[in-house]
Amino acid sequence: MGHGTTLPLTLHISLGRWIKFEEKVEDGGERWSAPHIPVLPLHSLFQLRTCLQEGKMLLDLEAPTFKEIIDKVLSGQPEETELQPELREHLADLLLRQPRHQPTKSLLWLIHEFILSPCLGRHGAWPWVATWLSPKHLLRTAASLSFQLRNQFKKKVPPGAEVAHVVVGEVEFLEKPFTAFIRLRQGVGLGSLAEVALPSRFLFILLGPRTKVKAYHEVGRAMATLLMDELFQRVAQQAEHREDLIAGMEAFLDELTVLPPRKWDPSTRIPPPSCLPSPYRSLLSLSALPQDHRAPTRLAVSWQWGHGSSWGQNWPGGPMSQGGAGEDRQRDATFGAGTDIRRKAPWYGSDFTDALHPQCLSAVLYIYLATVTNAITFGGMLGDATANMQGVLESFLGTAFAGSIFCLFSGQPLTILSSTGPVLVFERLLFSFSRDHSLDYLEFRLWIGLWVAFFGVVLVATEASHLVQYFTRFTEEGFCALISLIFIYDSLKKMLSLADAFPINWQYRLDNVTFYSCVCRQVREWGVCKVSVYDPSLLPVLSLQPPAVPAGLSRTQCLGQGGHLLGTSCQYVPDVTLVSFLLFGGTFLSCTVLKHFRSSRYFPVGVRKLVSDFAVILAILTSCTVDTALGLETPKLLVPSELKPTNPARGWIIFPFGANPWWVCLVSAVPAVLVTILIFMDQQITAIILNRREYKLQKGAGFHLDLLCVSLLMAITSATGLPWYVSTTVISLAHMESLRKESASSAPGEYPKFLGIREQRLTGLAVFTLTGVSIFMAPILKYIPMPVLYGVFLHMGVEALNSIQLTDRVRLLLMPAKHQPDLAYLRHVPLRRVHLFTIIQLLCLALLWVLKSTVAAIIFPVMLLALVGIRKGLERIFSLHDLSWLDSLLPESTRKEAKRGQPREQEEESNGEEVGRKRGLAAVRLDGQRPAPIAARDRRAYGGLSR
Amino acid sequence: MGHGTTLPLTLHISLGRWIKFEEKVEDGGERWSAPHIPVLPLHSLFQLRTCLQEGKMLLDLEAPTFKEIIDKVLSGQPEETELQPELREHLADLLLRQPRHQPTKSLLWLIHEFILSPCLGRHGAWPWVATWLSPKHLLRTAASLSFQLRNQFKKKVPPGAEVAHVVVGEVEFLEKPFTAFIRLRQGVGLGSLAEVALPSRFLFILLGPRTKVKAYHEVGRAMATLLMDELFQRVAQQAEHREDLIAGMEAFLDELTVLPPRKWDPSTRIPPPSCLPSPYRSLLSLSALPQDHRAPTRLAVSWQWGHGSSWGQNWPGGPMSQGGAGEDRQRDATFGAGTDIRRKAPWYGSDFTDALHPQCLSAVLYIYLATVTNAITFGGMLGDATANMQGVLESFLGTAFAGSIFCLFSGQPLTILSSTGPVLVFERLLFSFSRDHSLDYLEFRLWIGLWVAFFGVVLVATEASHLVQYFTRFTEEGFCALISLIFIYDSLKKMLSLADAFPINWQYRLDNVTFYSCVCRQVREWGVCKVSVYDPSLLPVLSLQPPAVPAGLSRTQCLGQGGHLLGTSCQYVPDVTLVSFLLFGGTFLSCTVLKHFRSSRYFPVGVRKLVSDFAVILAILTSCTVDTALGLETPKLLVPSELKPTNPARGWIIFPFGANPWWVCLVSAVPAVLVTILIFMDQQITAIILNRREYKLQKGAGFHLDLLCVSLLMAITSATGLPWYVSTTVISLAHMESLRKESASSAPGEYPKFLGIREQRLTGLAVFTLTGVSIFMAPILKYIPMPVLYGVFLHMGVEALNSIQLTDRVRLLLMPAKHQPDLAYLRHVPLRRVHLFTIIQLLCLALLWVLKSTVAAIIFPVMLLALVGIRKGLERIFSLHDLSWLDSLLPESTRKEAKRGQPREQEEESNGEEVGRKRGLAAVRLDGQRPAPIAARDRRAYGGLSR
Repeated sequence: MGHGTTLPLTLHISLGRWIKFEEKVEDGGERWSAPHIPVLPLHSLFQLRTCLQEGKMLLDLEAPTFKEIIDKVLSGQPEETELQPELREHLADLLLRQPRHQPTKSLLWLIHEFILSPCLGRHGAWPWVATWLSPKHLLRTAASLSFQLRNQFKKKVPPGAEVAHVVVGEVEFLEKPFTAFIRLRQGVGLGSLAEVALPSRFLFILLGPRTKVKAYHEVGRAMATLLMDELFQRVAQQAEHREDLIAGMEAFLDELTVLPPRKWDPSTRIPPPSCLPSPYRSLLSLSALPQDHRAPTRLAVSWQWGHGSSWGQNWPGGPMSQGGAGEDRQRDATFGAGTDIRRKAPWYGSDFTDALHPQCLSAVLYIYLATVTNAITFGGMLGDATANMQGVLESFLGTAFAGSIFCLFSGQPLTILSSTGPVLVFERLLFSFSRDHSLDYLEFRLWIGLWVAFFGVVLVATEASHLVQYFTRFTEEGFCALISLIFIYDSLKKMLSLADAFPINWQYRLDNVTFYSCVCRQVREWGVCKVSVYDPSLLPVLSLQPPAVPAGLSRTQCLGQGGHLLGTSCQYVPDVTLVSFLLFGGTFLSCTVLKHFRSSRYFPVGVRKLVSDFAVILAILTSCTVDTALGLETPKLLVPSELKPTNPARGWIIFPFGANPWWVCLVSAVPAVLVTILIFMDQQITAIILNRREYKLQKGAGFHLDLLCVSLLMAITSATGLPWYVSTTVISLAHMESLRKESASSAPGEYPKFLGIREQRLTGLAVFTLTGVSIFMAPILKYIPMPVLYGVFLHMGVEALNSIQLTDRVRLLLMPAKHQPDLAYLRHVPLRRVHLFTIIQLLCLALLWVLKSTVAAIIFPVMLLALVGIRKGLERIFSLHDLSWLDSLLPESTRKEAKRGQPREQEEESNGEEVGRKRGLAAVRLDGQRPAPIAARDRRAYGGLSR
Repeated sequence: MGHGTTLPLTLHISLGRWIKFEEKVEDGGERWSAPHIPVLPLHSLFQLRTCLQEGKMLLDLEAPTFKEIIDKVLSGQPEETELQPELREHLADLLLRQPRHQPTKSLLWLIHEFILSPCLGRHGAWPWVATWLSPKHLLRTAASLSFQLRNQFKKKVPPGAEVAHVVVGEVEFLEKPFTAFIRLRQGVGLGSLAEVALPSRFLFILLGPRTKVKAYHEVGRAMATLLMDELFQRVAQQAEHREDLIAGMEAFLDELTVLPPRKWDPSTRIPPPSCLPSPYRSLLSLSALPQDHRAPTRLAVSWQWGHGSSWGQNWPGGPMSQGGAGEDRQRDATFGAGTDIRRKAPWYGSDFTDALHPQCLSAVLYIYLATVTNAITFGGMLGDATANMQGVLESFLGTAFAGSIFCLFSGQPLTILSSTGPVLVFERLLFSFSRDHSLDYLEFRLWIGLWVAFFGVVLVATEASHLVQYFTRFTEEGFCALISLIFIYDSLKKMLSLADAFPINWQYRLDNVTFYSCVCRQVREWGVCKVSVYDPSLLPVLSLQPPAVPAGLSRTQCLGQGGHLLGTSCQYVPDVTLVSFLLFGGTFLSCTVLKHFRSSRYFPVGVRKLVSDFAVILAILTSCTVDTALGLETPKLLVPSELKPTNPARGWIIFPFGANPWWVCLVSAVPAVLVTILIFMDQQITAIILNRREYKLQKGAGFHLDLLCVSLLMAITSATGLPWYVSTTVISLAHMESLRKESASSAPGEYPKFLGIREQRLTGLAVFTLTGVSIFMAPILKYIPMPVLYGVFLHMGVEALNSIQLTDRVRLLLMPAKHQPDLAYLRHVPLRRVHLFTIIQLLCLALLWVLKSTVAAIIFPVMLLALVGIRKGLERIFSLHDLSWLDSLLPESTRKEAKRGQPREQEEESNGEEVGRKRGLAAVRLDGQRPAPIAARDRRAYGGLSR
């Protein structure tokens, strides 16, 4: 074939780029595919090995420009393969030709390019990056678009990244393939070849005669995939001979997993997994490992974190006590609140300086809204439960006061205090008990509060928080499910009671409109016989009589003047109930839909996150607007317009004596024990969840100090008649989530790395100060209809119920085995045992519910303790292996959350579990009987406390 | 190590089975995992190759029992490897030991077993089956459970299947691995070794010294995967030497795809794909292919199917005319309705005998309910649109009559006739036109109907159905979207008009209950001054006057006696509107939820399918029950209780002259042209969709005959004042879906194969007969509230809107590129072009909507033709490559359906598309300009007509 001076080329360019995962350029040439796992034909990897074995290899080439590189590559050629000078010239021309010309003829070549970065930055990971250049952008679109793309893409590339280019193509004038692998001594900027302006380090060229296009293309993809592998990158950078590289590739080949042909459609793109296997394990086992790798450091840091929050690792004896590694930490065993203070004191300054980050501002706004909503809803419910002895105003004041104090002095200032469900339930029981037995509620409550504070201090002094070890998922879920069900039940009951308060005339007939009326009759004065029959047929008779006079009185005026209302429409209220139900349903649905908007595909992440974060506020606002626009007299939230107690019958200070008999102050100790149990469980379960190892808290926890704070606040709020406050799991978790630190740049398809939480006291303080200021919002708050709040409560109950594993397991009861999701515990625990566990839990729940509804309701907290007992009993029915899967304390939802956020950490954990599981399994199998407790597994069940 | 006479074994058994996909036994030993694609370490495949190369191989062994097999395997041993007699004895003991004993000590062995079946049954596929036995069932659970499991599993195994066993394990007394691959000459039942009682054919044994358990295990899995491969199965059955087997394995290795390490979590289970790559292509390229394989036959059948429904392949010229293969079929080009009759006549007998299958009974019930619902809803809407000139009764009668006639005489009896949206819209326009111009609606309509019938016959005679070629997705979607939007808009408008009919007193104040009343005043008789002010403050004054008498009159009585109603509550109706809205929303939501219940995880498939199929009926029943229970006077469906026209002003026969001027019968030809266009498009688009190639119809279509039937029915229904009927896409598709024939047995994880449709006339006939009988249901139907029907209509509109690709593309407008789903056309068409196409379509839709709402509404059908014109214009803007992706006639939903149901067929098609696309792409690239039409691609766009 004769070739003219101008090469008749068509640049047929297949595109792709790799930063950790593959991104193809789609058919149109303008769209990057979603990042996916590169799936290669095995064949192409073997072809690549042949290429590396036989092709040209230049390691540590020194060349400042692309031209020089190409020259050097081509110059060394003749001795090995007979590349004629003419061909060499053609090749150089071809390779150096900047891809700017309009293609003219049928000669194809492909350029693949990608970026590598040996950046060992502070993230500890190795963000090696690979891209496949798209010279088509240069061809087709103007440079501006190209630059824009570059800029957008640049954000995804970690600092210190370098580029590798893979150039693959078909050339008509070659008779056998020409391969070259080049490593430059330093990174060199190769201009427009790279998509982002980064130094290039590696170059792989494969040009061959026209045979099967796909083959070269796939070899190029294989090279890119290989260069993306963390271990091979290390090899490629340090290799001194061709053999090192081949050995690295062999190691890579050895680790491959394969998919059988014809069982799978290779055009399917596998999305990147949420958690990746760690390269460190392989690294440690790699013999050629250099000394400066960071893996041990990282593991050490991980241990240190474990230590930082390792308050509970030294529970006194029991199945939790840990031999071996924990010895030197055993000395800390005697700390109490004092130790907590000593440990937290050095951080106190940084607790304020660490808050200087814009992220904290948005966290404040979000948590403020959540807190205010909570204060409104709980305040409304409390007011409802206690005849406004504690109302919304008290709720605001108390939240602001208790929250601020807690944020300033607690051990874990990320915790958000709030009224919680169990306390609400107890207050309701207490109030009806007081009313039924003619006791003064607030005074009774004051004494209970004082006793609780006392017991709390005793608990702190005796370090009884160690009892937390007996709280497992079984207990926590029973507790959570009960509270959620009470929320759901209460909101529905409230709505139905609305139907009683505003009854609908279901028998209303349009044709009888003339028969419906309601007139005021003043019985005594006019002496009309009382007509108690409201039969419409009687009405005409009545109407014929002289009117009852004065008929111009409104309902209140009439009743105020001793009259009574007579008529078929008196006891009915049209429309209000139905509008209330519409508002209730609308609020619930919009809360749920907006909350789940985060995981929708529409709109950018920022918008979705915003909408999802403000879901409840948005739903409340919308419903209130609709309600105001309709203008019906729906029942509204009762808020005092001035800064005085909601119920005029009480003052700001509760006096300890006077209203009740003297012995009440002693008897109060009995319910106080119950409240103490309640507060203790509520507080400590939340604290455990917040101080989990996954959150990588650096400043440690302060369980004892927290409990002390809560106890002292208890005394103050009791004396001032404000609600009682405990840590609330949901909002506290939201607080921490909104303060996540994540790695800024990440490869497409890779989840950002979780770096920790901004631990400080300022956000909480700001939230509660704002809450205090919001008391003056009362005139606005009274526009909120009660059905809207009930809708929010229903939403909260349903969400909480959905977040526990128990609900998942109940769902499993309804699913045929083959449709069940691939849950971890289903892989390891037989289905019958899972069902048995679920049913036992449900029976306990039913028992709790029945007890709660009977006279025994006041001993409700004790029943929670009974749960702990039942859980211990379960160990006789289930093997520890099963229990460890079903009954770990971390709620499923937060596990999922953690999985999403922090692949590496979670992965390590699940591997730990794997190991633990295996050990347990082996023990079962080898001995043929139930093994001794598997300490490692069981400790894991207590989350952050175990290390 | 000394070994006693009784071997101290622990049978540590890892379990799995393969029928096409892998199923593991989960940790607990009692649960089969979901079927998934077996993912293997590459390493284990190489180890397996070594095993096959070096191990023992017995091909075509003759042995009737397992004992004899083992004996023969072990006896031939000594010459190659020095297996001492003692070891041999141990091995035999170990292998023959039935896994029934309680394990005693730490010696592990694994048994894997799986089933192969070289069954070349009527499905044309090769259902080779592989299982991994679970002897643990025998160990742990009683035989009864085991048998039960077997029976359940047996259903999944195709007839003629054979078993292969893989026995892998660790044995302490061996010093080097012992491998054997055995093929039996005939299948031999090996008793309890197999999970199902099938003959065994292959055996693979790998026992080795204790090193890495996982390694042997993985080699076992690799062997199982290998034996599951269709091509290797063929090799394994025909291999005569070890080398054949190794070559087969090499071929397998060559086709592997690999996943890079550290980019993917190997414990993730990849679910089986919905469509599998066909093994036939590889088969055809396999040189060792025997002569009796069925692949060509199948392809031929596929062509024949194509031919069976290839009515449109010979459109006169144009881009559709097909060179080459179509020549000999060109002779059929002149058929019309007569040809249709000649073609369908031979099938007429079988059209009744083919219906003798229980499936048809359930299809009848389902389609009957759908038809009745449709008749009710459309009847209600029609009655509403035409002042009951055509009501529900007419709808029932007409449906029963027209449907039965059509089923008996049409070309495609699977089609279901119904009133359709476009016709409804036209009737509404026609009625208001008649009213506005004082024409007699029914007489006018009769003339239009007669003209339409005439035009229809002309169209049939001139074979104008060939014009269908110009209908593309663009047209069809514009049409469908417009109809859906009209449905949605109408149902919402109707609901809002309810609020006008039953107004709510938004200003109602509970306190003013005494001021609300409504009294009857007979103005003339009593001479009371007319009070037009309804100010409540005036009421007391009025009430003081003597009552207007007789106040005992109801609303109708009062108005009937010439009185008028006076008072603040007269014009308001409490609660009815709100309850209507609740019913409306409830019906819509429950329809939607129940419809999607099919894809939920709960309950077995049968239950879900039932609920989903009867979703609309269930929703209507529930809502009616709720409405009846509440007892409010919600507006109900107006149904005559006797067999007489809904509107008493009309009779059963419409007379052609009398009410309108004589020239109306001529002028009617103008609207008749419009209706003809409407009917033609509606009928033919549905017909094309129903006769698609994917449905594998054997008896062919009858487009001309269908149109003839519809035209003649048009004349009859016009003369009797019944609604007009056309084929309805949704119900007809449901009809076909409910008559699917699918392969009975399928491997776990494999989708059942689609075999065709039960083509017959009996189901349709039964449906319409039942519909006719339902006329006597009228007394029941009047309990259905209108809001419920509006809810159903909203549901139908939303579902139809959701089913078109346009909606998907509108959604894309709101999605950031990176969150967009991996749609086929997005891979191939640049996003900007997709958006441009969507926006043009939306603009057309907006134009249609605006025109529809103005005076030009009556020419609505012509606008649909305009769509066809615009579509032609699009070819100037978009490349044919883009259009072929965006504008193919098959709606996305049915494509998905097809994909779900028929993996093979769909796969072939998408591959064809791939080829076509490539060709198109190459043309663009090579010539540098827009290519000539790609005939193959474009023909594909017209679905079943192309071949």
